[in-house]
Amino acid sequence: MRDVPIGITAAGVRPEFDSMGSVDVPADRYWGAQTQRSLLHFSIGNDRMPIEVYHAYGYVKKACALVNRAAGRLPADKADAIVQAADETIAGKLDTEFPLYVWQTGSGTQSNMNVNEVLSNRSIQLLGGTLGSQQPVGPNDHVNMGQSSNDTFPTAMHIAAVRMLDDVLLPKVEALTEAIEAKAGQWSQVVKIGRTHLEDAVPLTVGQEWSGYAAQLRACLAEIRHSRQGLLELAIGGTAVGTGLNAPKGFSRDVAATIAELLGKPFVTAPNKFAAQGSLDAMVRAGAALRGLAVALMKIANDMRWLASGPRTGFAELLLPSNEPGSSIMPGKVNPTQCEAIVMIAIQVLGDDAAIAFAGSQGNFELNAMRPVIINNFLHSARILADGCEKFRLFSVEGTKINEKKISAYVADSVMLVTALSPIIGYQNAAHIAEAAIANGTTLKEAALASGKVDEETFDRVVNPLDMVGRGVEGA
Amino acid sequence: MRDVPIGITAAGVRPEFDSMGSVDVPADRYWGAQTQRSLLHFSIGNDRMPIEVYHAYGYVKKACALVNRAAGRLPADKADAIVQAADETIAGKLDTEFPLYVWQTGSGTQSNMNVNEVLSNRSIQLLGGTLGSQQPVGPNDHVNMGQSSNDTFPTAMHIAAVRMLDDVLLPKVEALTEAIEAKAGQWSQVVKIGRTHLEDAVPLTVGQEWSGYAAQLRACLAEIRHSRQGLLELAIGGTAVGTGLNAPKGFSRDVAATIAELLGKPFVTAPNKFAAQGSLDAMVRAGAALRGLAVALMKIANDMRWLASGPRTGFAELLLPSNEPGSSIMPGKVNPTQCEAIVMIAIQVLGDDAAIAFAGSQGNFELNAMRPVIINNFLHSARILADGCEKFRLFSVEGTKINEKKISAYVADSVMLVTALSPIIGYQNAAHIAEAAIANGTTLKEAALASGKVDEETFDRVVNPLDMVGRGVEGA
Amino acid sequence: MRDVPIGITAAGVRPEFDSMGSVDVPADRYWGAQTQRSLLHFSIGNDRMPIEVYHAYGYVKKACALVNRAAGRLPADKADAIVQAADETIAGKLDTEFPLYVWQTGSGTQSNMNVNEVLSNRSIQLLGGTLGSQQPVGPNDHVNMGQSSNDTFPTAMHIAAVRMLDDVLLPKVEALTEAIEAKAGQWSQVVKIGRTHLEDAVPLTVGQEWSGYAAQLRACLAEIRHSRQGLLELAIGGTAVGTGLNAPKGFSRDVAATIAELLGKPFVTAPNKFAAQGSLDAMVRAGAALRGLAVALMKIANDMRWLASGPRTGFAELLLPSNEPGSSIMPGKVNPTQCEAIVMIAIQVLGDDAAIAFAGSQGNFELNAMRPVIINNFLHSARILADGCEKFRLFSVEGTKINEKKISAYVADSVMLVTALSPIIGYQNAAHIAEAAIANGTTLKEAALASGKVDEETFDRVVNPLDMVGRGVEGA
Amino acid sequence: MRDVPIGITAAGVRPEFDSMGSVDVPADRYWGAQTQRSLLHFSIGNDRMPIEVYHAYGYVKKACALVNRAAGRLPADKADAIVQAADETIAGKLDTEFPLYVWQTGSGTQSNMNVNEVLSNRSIQLLGGTLGSQQPVGPNDHVNMGQSSNDTFPTAMHIAAVRMLDDVLLPKVEALTEAIEAKAGQWSQVVKIGRTHLEDAVPLTVGQEWSGYAAQLRACLAEIRHSRQGLLELAIGGTAVGTGLNAPKGFSRDVAATIAELLGKPFVTAPNKFAAQGSLDAMVRAGAALRGLAVALMKIANDMRWLASGPRTGFAELLLPSNEPGSSIMPGKVNPTQCEAIVMIAIQVLGDDAAIAFAGSQGNFELNAMRPVIINNFLHSARILADGCEKFRLFSVEGTKINEKKISAYVADSVMLVTALSPIIGYQNAAHIAEAAIANGTTLKEAALASGKVDEETFDRVVNPLDMVGRGVEGA
Repeated sequence: MRDVPIGITAAGVRPEFDSMGSVDVPADRYWGAQTQRSLLHFSIGNDRMPIEVYHAYGYVKKACALVNRAAGRLPADKADAIVQAADETIAGKLDTEFPLYVWQTGSGTQSNMNVNEVLSNRSIQLLGGTLGSQQPVGPNDHVNMGQSSNDTFPTAMHIAAVRMLDDVLLPKVEALTEAIEAKAGQWSQVVKIGRTHLEDAVPLTVGQEWSGYAAQLRACLAEIRHSRQGLLELAIGGTAVGTGLNAPKGFSRDVAATIAELLGKPFVTAPNKFAAQGSLDAMVRAGAALRGLAVALMKIANDMRWLASGPRTGFAELLLPSNEPGSSIMPGKVNPTQCEAIVMIAIQVLGDDAAIAFAGSQGNFELNAMRPVIINNFLHSARILADGCEKFRLFSVEGTKINEKKISAYVADSVMLVTALSPIIGYQNAAHIAEAAIANGTTLKEAALASGKVDEETFDRVVNPLDMVGRGVEGA
Repeated sequence: MRDVPIGITAAGVRPEFDSMGSVDVPADRYWGAQTQRSLLHFSIGNDRMPIEVYHAYGYVKKACALVNRAAGRLPADKADAIVQAADETIAGKLDTEFPLYVWQTGSGTQSNMNVNEVLSNRSIQLLGGTLGSQQPVGPNDHVNMGQSSNDTFPTAMHIAAVRMLDDVLLPKVEALTEAIEAKAGQWSQVVKIGRTHLEDAVPLTVGQEWSGYAAQLRACLAEIRHSRQGLLELAIGGTAVGTGLNAPKGFSRDVAATIAELLGKPFVTAPNKFAAQGSLDAMVRAGAALRGLAVALMKIANDMRWLASGPRTGFAELLLPSNEPGSSIMPGKVNPTQCEAIVMIAIQVLGDDAAIAFAGSQGNFELNAMRPVIINNFLHSARILADGCEKFRLFSVEGTKINEKKISAYVADSVMLVTALSPIIGYQNAAHIAEAAIANGTTLKEAALASGKVDEETFDRVVNPLDMVGRGVEGA
Repeated sequence: MRDVPIGITAAGVRPEFDSMGSVDVPADRYWGAQTQRSLLHFSIGNDRMPIEVYHAYGYVKKACALVNRAAGRLPADKADAIVQAADETIAGKLDTEFPLYVWQTGSGTQSNMNVNEVLSNRSIQLLGGTLGSQQPVGPNDHVNMGQSSNDTFPTAMHIAAVRMLDDVLLPKVEALTEAIEAKAGQWSQVVKIGRTHLEDAVPLTVGQEWSGYAAQLRACLAEIRHSRQGLLELAIGGTAVGTGLNAPKGFSRDVAATIAELLGKPFVTAPNKFAAQGSLDAMVRAGAALRGLAVALMKIANDMRWLASGPRTGFAELLLPSNEPGSSIMPGKVNPTQCEAIVMIAIQVLGDDAAIAFAGSQGNFELNAMRPVIINNFLHSARILADGCEKFRLFSVEGTKINEKKISAYVADSVMLVTALSPIIGYQNAAHIAEAAIANGTTLKEAALASGKVDEETFDRVVNPLDMVGRGVEGA
Repeated sequence: MRDVPIGITAAGVRPEFDSMGSVDVPADRYWGAQTQRSLLHFSIGNDRMPIEVYHAYGYVKKACALVNRAAGRLPADKADAIVQAADETIAGKLDTEFPLYVWQTGSGTQSNMNVNEVLSNRSIQLLGGTLGSQQPVGPNDHVNMGQSSNDTFPTAMHIAAVRMLDDVLLPKVEALTEAIEAKAGQWSQVVKIGRTHLEDAVPLTVGQEWSGYAAQLRACLAEIRHSRQGLLELAIGGTAVGTGLNAPKGFSRDVAATIAELLGKPFVTAPNKFAAQGSLDAMVRAGAALRGLAVALMKIANDMRWLASGPRTGFAELLLPSNEPGSSIMPGKVNPTQCEAIVMIAIQVLGDDAAIAFAGSQGNFELNAMRPVIINNFLHSARILADGCEKFRLFSVEGTKINEKKISAYVADSVMLVTALSPIIGYQNAAHIAEAAIANGTTLKEAALASGKVDEETFDRVVNPLDMVGRGVEGA
């Protein structure tokens, strides 16, 4: 194998061929006839197949080449060249060679062939052959040996998804959760008024409130990790329809094991290849886990922006960082922009997930031909959730402060503390006291004493916000 | 406690009161003022709060009464009366006493008060008191002792959901899965043509195809069981805002343990009551599990109806049972009606789930006030999935037969068997043979031999459908 | 024709037949073999085909009988009997004879046959024949003459949908809109602080704010009326696949005209029957119009409940009617329950509509076989929107009051009035004044004068809330 | 005004300021402090605010400058510079100056300020001032004069959306519709077998079938055009909260008129600015119109790929163009890839639209702060629908051929032609003939004659497929 740097120095076009004939491709590109055909037929919008899919495909092609070489099916020099080209793909050095659109064949065949063609020509280059000759390394016969788009594409989808979760989403959500947990701890003794139905309710601490946010996120993290289990099962080895035709015995397990080793992640072969290729159910489940995170984030971000509303005419319990002027017309205005971004991201994720689920239902026979739309939406959701959580943490959560003066004034002013009297004087009597305080605009204590149902000593002993917040987060 | 049969023999109306004053209710009903107010204010459409929620509430109220009695907070006679009334609720004997609509307060307070009022008056009846007097058992002070709608309603939601899964959905999906597995076994040796992109592909066995369906359903069952874990965590003990105000220490654990014992299911107290009441994330996740089942069922039902299309101008591989005349105008027509019902159910479940997720995102502060819409959609989805699976199994899957003549004709006719030649003569040569066969309308063998790329002996040895289907379901 | 009251006095079962053979039906029911078969095969959940569909079918069958009679195809006595039975169906007198489930054949054939069978037997009864004999009026040959489920069911869908809009939804939304317009007028001079991003902004009047709600609803009404136009096009006359086979020339126009006359609504024949039967696009569009209403209502109901939040620790600008005690544990609590119901209804409608759109996309060839799920969701959405709007109007909007004291205090306190200074002293200077006021907790005037950028006379002249609200609702 | 080409030749950074202080920006960029702040705080994923929004903003800023100049509020030199910079924006010459992300403040303020800053500095450059000095043209005081993000951003959204519809989507859908209409005409006399429930039904012509597709698309076009009407109403002139504060009297009408003139489209001022800024209902309705198109396209693309299934074991009525090799493993395979792309696009559009509707419901008070997510999804959907339709037309519809041999064989073979006998021998007799033919595998004629219910002459006269297809597309 020669030591040739990446890149083709040529101008004009180069003929490439496939079973349908010859196609001219830009001479400085590695791709071949089928990539070029796809560019012609599918230049739709601006959505490109996510680069993460190609990086994942690098692992697939490398693992297959290694297993084929070990089995004596693929000569060492061809295998080594393919492996090097795959490594370059994994490393992102060939990113510009993968230009295809999301909106293409539903099996992802065109992206698989894009990879096959690029690795073929790069291998030919490394081995001193003629670009476009498919010799000594052909896209179908060697790079794709023992494989089909039908098994490699979902394999690449799962790898790309797991990497996105492990490397991008989970760490960023974890960091956000820890930041919220720190706030929960910091404010664990600050008593505030609770609200249900948006209306004044009995007290809790700010820390308890934020512990709820953290608990939601912890559960979301667990669910994402659970859904990741399903993604560890790989279709590779099923080939065209799940039977493994043209792949040697043991191929599915060997390739899965090699992928697992290369990535250091416990990938395994899918136990039923007909399900693994005819459906994308594991992706649908993973999409639902992302949606679960979006649902929780929306609650949290909404709470924060409502509690920060004001400064003079809103709840004004929280003070969010002032990151930028909020208005082009209203001077001095500061808005909860990070919260709004999270809410919009959450909405987008629900939309993405709706597309994933719909697409997941549309498989027929031995193939679900809705793969590109599914992986694109999944990676999109994971990415914006991840980055959104990071920015939300850095520019909103970590810098959030509490307005203690306002918070304690609310506690002092609330009439719902009457609830503590209920076990002593009964619900109905307590209700009438609260109603009187609201109607007459008095304090709760004034109304309580005026009712004659409770004396001052009892009132002062029982109606004590600090005693009402319980201990910890488990309730009574 | 007196032995009084269920029922009130009275005509006209009876005054009932709550903190806002007196309300006339039908004299022969157990419910009180707040139920009556809700009937007036919320008679919207025909959606009633599912009866399963009230049955679940029976367990909640019984468990609370038992724990309150044991703690010496609730006198034994009152507790016993409440327990009996709760048992009657659980047994479905008071179903007509729970008339409220889904579209009510978002906390479910009105349904909680409906239960409180009915159990109050039934207890009063059992203890010889005056209906509507709230003595000796009041709806707020005794039936609802140590409780809030905010913790009891999500508790009842979880109990109702778990019971629906355990008693209705899981068994019926399990039975369907087993029926499909039986078919997969029965047809494990019948070679058929595979199809990808709806187009002819390489062969597999009918049994392999159906094994994929079964594997999808097995994964769905596992996911539903996983989501059930989240539903086992109960909010009870959080009371109004999660702090447990007005509930004694240990209440949350004691009531959860009692509920677990009464139901024989491993319910536990939710570790964070602020999350348990401020969100409904466990319900959202359980909804996603139902959606996952819908997605899989849609694939299966679609495959079946397409494979059964015909009889003369479709795929015609499967023969579904003829359950009814299919057309009011076309005599002798038989349609895949069970499959269509499943597809429609799947679509409905996706719609229900979209509502669940949206609602799940709309909590504010200490309460997600979208509970009724969530539990109604969840139970609806679970019920129609369950019944749909049962009917689909009984009237479609179990009676499905294969059209072996058609299936084997397809195998004989297909040109995609050429794939097996690919490793020997290369992909491009193989492609040209297939193209020639299609273009000229010849058999694959004729085209192969005409190409000069393969001799007859090799062709006959290699192009053998039986050898192409591999072994089992794991692929190569 | 004999004068026979509705009802069959018979016990046990009666044999009925169809092309597949004989089936026993309850002897006191009018329905026949196919209805009975459907009850056996499709008892799934509790969702019954909406009764409105059958009432609409009454018009379809009546109109067809009239046209067939006029054409001399159907003898007068048979036609008259069918017409009477159809009239009884329209009047709701046969409601209990239509027991079938939503989850049935996707064409609605079973409901069409249910109608055919009931009208057949009722006609037989009127004409003195033997029930179950299909003589002298048969379900297929006479009641269904010149028709198919494929054209009659979508016709009945459209009729049922239009009637629901005209008789139920539009009047109730109109009434709500008028109630809101009345409020907008009543409060047209009450200056309040505006809020963008939930944060304090410049002033407007309460009436202007409510005029926005009204304008949203007016646009929704217009859109619903627009979508209704598509529903006026009827498929009848397409028969089995859109060609009109077995229906006489002119049938489609004649029946549509008759239906139009019977209902007093401008129904017409659909210009292309292949589209009218192969798709349900007009229903999808009508579903979108309902969704549009849900979207607007959610904004309005959310605004109202947030503005009513409090009473002590929220925005507290609005005072909603206290319809019922709000909490089972917190005495004296009042919640925005009508708003919550509207929000939940809106969420449900979005879920229903998601199902409608998905189902609308799943047609194949000459039939969209997702009809029952579509009409059920549409009528459900329309019904709960209608009733929800009525209750919202009666029990929330009409009784809403404003808290003028709070509203004017907010205006006095706000610093965003600084915006009016911007054209005079520039945005940046104005911003620094606002920031200083917020940071130092002073009034805007104090900060403005302290800045030295504006004198008192100018401040008092320019910073006048009354002058900031413009005139009317068109902006500048 | 000087003649300065676009571009800043400077290295390093340049200080820019806003009300919060100074920020360094790349010295070769026109943008200012707030754009730079947004880049720091909101680098989330890869979704950038669509460039179409900035082009539309060019019209908004130009029109405002013209109106402000005419009113004597903005000196001519400043106005002229702004106008030139706006023209450059419209022409796409400043595209690289608008780098912000979709996930930003929900009002779009940061994109408005990005425009204000770029136009400010470009104007300063044109007028010989110092970049970053905000003199003589400031971003807030001059470029944004009489404006707010709250009114300009939705104005730009509407303009961008209308331009996308007019210039991109409508022409491409129109062209597709015409291509389908041409096919419908071409095949208007080719009799084929119809299918309902996927099962054999009575005949129609291929042209009739395709006329249904065309009719669906025509209705979608009409609906998109209808929804466009709502987009013609512009919020401009409402400024901060809809009252028009800081804009002169008549501003809203004058600017709308100017925009209308500049674009040659009938834009008008929105009749109620509180609705126009507090909601995005017109966008939600326009999103629904796109969804309607997606629903129709899915039906059409699905029909085409099913009818093209085969070549040996499917319906095989249609022959789609062979654009590329279909499989990496199965030689000679051709797949309906354009149809699959359309189906995936349709699914994506439903997901995008779900996000739009959800976001549309989440406005609060005087602002719907979900604007970026809405416009991004809308333009995305419109773009992929448009391009998808173009590719589908070019590479699938126009080249589609029919397999007449197969089509006529199906007609000859079908037993559902029995329907034509029904009016003569009755439905039940006809059904028994069809059942016998299917059960015994005979032709319909054989079974009919064997039944004794019909003689050969009658059969030959009545069972004539050509006579069964009716005339035209209106049915009977």
